[in-house]
Amino acid sequence: MNIDEIRAAATRLQGHVRRTPLLSSPFLDEVAGKRVFLKPECLQHTGSFKYRGALNAISKLRNAQRTKGIIAYSSGNHAQGIALAASQANAPSVIVMPSDAPRQKIDNTRALGAEVVLFDRETGDRDKIGAEIASDRGLTLIKPFDNADVIAGQGTIGLEIAEQAREAGVDAASVLVPCGGGGLTSGVALALEANAPGFRVHPVEPEGFDDVARSLVSGRIEQNTRRSGSICDAIITPSPGDLPFPILQKLCGPGLVVSEDDCLRAMAHAFNALKVVIEPGGAVALAAALSQADKVDGSCIIAIASGGNVDAPIFADALNRFA
Amino acid sequence: MNIDEIRAAATRLQGHVRRTPLLSSPFLDEVAGKRVFLKPECLQHTGSFKYRGALNAISKLRNAQRTKGIIAYSSGNHAQGIALAASQANAPSVIVMPSDAPRQKIDNTRALGAEVVLFDRETGDRDKIGAEIASDRGLTLIKPFDNADVIAGQGTIGLEIAEQAREAGVDAASVLVPCGGGGLTSGVALALEANAPGFRVHPVEPEGFDDVARSLVSGRIEQNTRRSGSICDAIITPSPGDLPFPILQKLCGPGLVVSEDDCLRAMAHAFNALKVVIEPGGAVALAAALSQADKVDGSCIIAIASGGNVDAPIFADALNRFA
Repeated sequence: MNIDEIRAAATRLQGHVRRTPLLSSPFLDEVAGKRVFLKPECLQHTGSFKYRGALNAISKLRNAQRTKGIIAYSSGNHAQGIALAASQANAPSVIVMPSDAPRQKIDNTRALGAEVVLFDRETGDRDKIGAEIASDRGLTLIKPFDNADVIAGQGTIGLEIAEQAREAGVDAASVLVPCGGGGLTSGVALALEANAPGFRVHPVEPEGFDDVARSLVSGRIEQNTRRSGSICDAIITPSPGDLPFPILQKLCGPGLVVSEDDCLRAMAHAFNALKVVIEPGGAVALAAALSQADKVDGSCIIAIASGGNVDAPIFADALNRFA
Repeated sequence: MNIDEIRAAATRLQGHVRRTPLLSSPFLDEVAGKRVFLKPECLQHTGSFKYRGALNAISKLRNAQRTKGIIAYSSGNHAQGIALAASQANAPSVIVMPSDAPRQKIDNTRALGAEVVLFDRETGDRDKIGAEIASDRGLTLIKPFDNADVIAGQGTIGLEIAEQAREAGVDAASVLVPCGGGGLTSGVALALEANAPGFRVHPVEPEGFDDVARSLVSGRIEQNTRRSGSICDAIITPSPGDLPFPILQKLCGPGLVVSEDDCLRAMAHAFNALKVVIEPGGAVALAAALSQADKVDGSCIIAIASGGNVDAPIFADALNRFA
């Protein structure tokens, strides 16, 4: 993995991917006690950054692979990214999703043209289910983060942040990134290492699912004990990916950890101050910016909001409790 | 008023005003039965397009006027635009607001540094209150829509729409604009007349406050009978402004009218499909796009979302009922 792959992805994605703006509000600066910027990838096509990596990976497949079709597993954001990018390439897609995924994510993945196969997160093995279907039908598996083309696509966000921060007069910042398997975090870190060397990337995770933060401390890939039971479904992965982890070790950290209430409060702040909708897992970085700004260096924080695919009752709950 | 003033405003605002993206979703296209784009000015600084006109008008004042200060009346969006632009110019500001304005709008206007003077919308006369304070303190009044510099600032949205639509391959569209006094609608219409002549602008208003639609039919300025009692507070004005009306007559119409439930439903659709927060008055144009697409020409609609300053209970209500 290197910066050239990310730059090539940016060229490939141009005109297809939305260049999300860099948002800010004096009200958020006041809460954090530092200057805060938000990169709202919730405004990306399909409501999350995952469309970038999915489109880059699908664009690089051979025609024969696209014709046979694509398979992916995902709690819903990679799912929608793959479903949309596949349908745009006239490729059939099958998505293996946990049955407790947010309703909106399951519905939208189907509406974007994918065949959805549900499994039980506690008892089923998505790798086994996916491998069987892939083998039966000759489908190409696109993993959500252990895939260099996916990481390169996500890294294009880092190129945009570097440019937009420069336009805003920012030349040093702590960049906080919602982190599941580490595809987004590692791609952004590679892009910023090349294009904004004054920036330091910190992965952010929810309490109880801090495998990346612990792995960065111990120096080896650590596992989460639980596999479900968080409103931050988008970033609940068992462990950091094999491909992202060495990049995270080299360029990122330490990791930050926030509570679910911190996430709901950040969602309410984003509603009030920025008028964007963020899902709980996508709000961990803003949550850390607003509640733990003193734990990172410098006077400026750039937080990525990785997605906005939240069911209405959870969003209404965030507003009722914290807006 | 002409296009040169709008182009000069764009130059003046560059680097200060956010270039909001042009959003779309296959899910909205499906609801409308046409291609739908949203220009989300809710993502603008202060959460509404009003910052554009306010900044342009304040930039053109003489230093002596800025030093003495600015006065404005507004239910909350022009208020916040003036408050922020004034504070950035180190000018004191006084905003006369109705006491039933949304709490968030009153709070934010104060937080942005303005002195807020409340009046009762049914019994008080904001013009009289404003004129007295202005005269006592030597303040300069910046009207919300009967001001050429304000209209020119709002018109910069039309320049952006023309460019962004061209990038999206759209060369003919019906452009739906939330309309109160007509400042935004007339500015956008002037910009599109010059830069996107295949586009037709339609003002959109809530039921019971359709003064502009009726004025366009009768050919003279009509009044609303009610002055309050709508969740669409942002666009509840007594009648179209003297300066915008001839422009609306020449370039716009017919006007469209939507119900409050149409607005709440559009807010829920924007939450689900685009991840942006729109206030009821800012959602009238999207509401018309989703429910009355057959009433306008062509296969493509561009709707402006003029603001996102909505109190949490109203937004939660929209989600509970329609998401």
